[in-house]
Amino acid sequence: MDTDCIFCKIAAGDLPAKKVYEDDQIMAFFDIHPKASVHLLVIPKKHIATLNDLNTTDSALISKLVLALPEIAKEQKLEGFRVVVNNGPGSGQIVYHLHFHILGGKQIPTF
Amino acid sequence: MDTDCIFCKIAAGDLPAKKVYEDDQIMAFFDIHPKASVHLLVIPKKHIATLNDLNTTDSALISKLVLALPEIAKEQKLEGFRVVVNNGPGSGQIVYHLHFHILGGKQIPTF
Repeated sequence: MDTDCIFCKIAAGDLPAKKVYEDDQIMAFFDIHPKASVHLLVIPKKHIATLNDLNTTDSALISKLVLALPEIAKEQKLEGFRVVVNNGPGSGQIVYHLHFHILGGKQIPTF
Repeated sequence: MDTDCIFCKIAAGDLPAKKVYEDDQIMAFFDIHPKASVHLLVIPKKHIATLNDLNTTDSALISKLVLALPEIAKEQKLEGFRVVVNNGPGSGQIVYHLHFHILGGKQIPTF
């Protein structure tokens, strides 16, 4: 855990979030600044800053997270959805704790 | 292989693509309709239509693909980049063979 990281604090239960999924390794919650009618963030609980910081010891974690994405979307009654990861400088990444956006509903923004 | 799938044909070498990475399981090539100054598509060679069609037997494949994303971006000299997966109806998915967009360079579009 990175004590300065807001997503680590959410994962630890020290900051509130509107959770929709949680297990021992991953968590999903609503983005507080939604860019679509349904906008979720899916994170590993482990502090990993960016995709560049993943290594092969995270393989099981990352495949679990990716396989969870359609399950989490389905729970929100999303038929189609967009997954976005902003990664590093200039990409729009604000929080440096890896997070997968799920954007769905009536207003999926173009990219 | 799905014989009607253009990405299966690219993976098999039956259709041309400007490849930037290839191994026995995954391939990366330039999008022919770029939405950023660098716009790549990263695919599993195996025909998987959407994220919803992944199952646990694909875990090693999907983690390998995700871990390859920053490596492929680095080869293109991208410091920051965006990863996008359009998934299913209404999302903008055109080819129903799972593909991860990498968008980078000077013109990463907003989402």
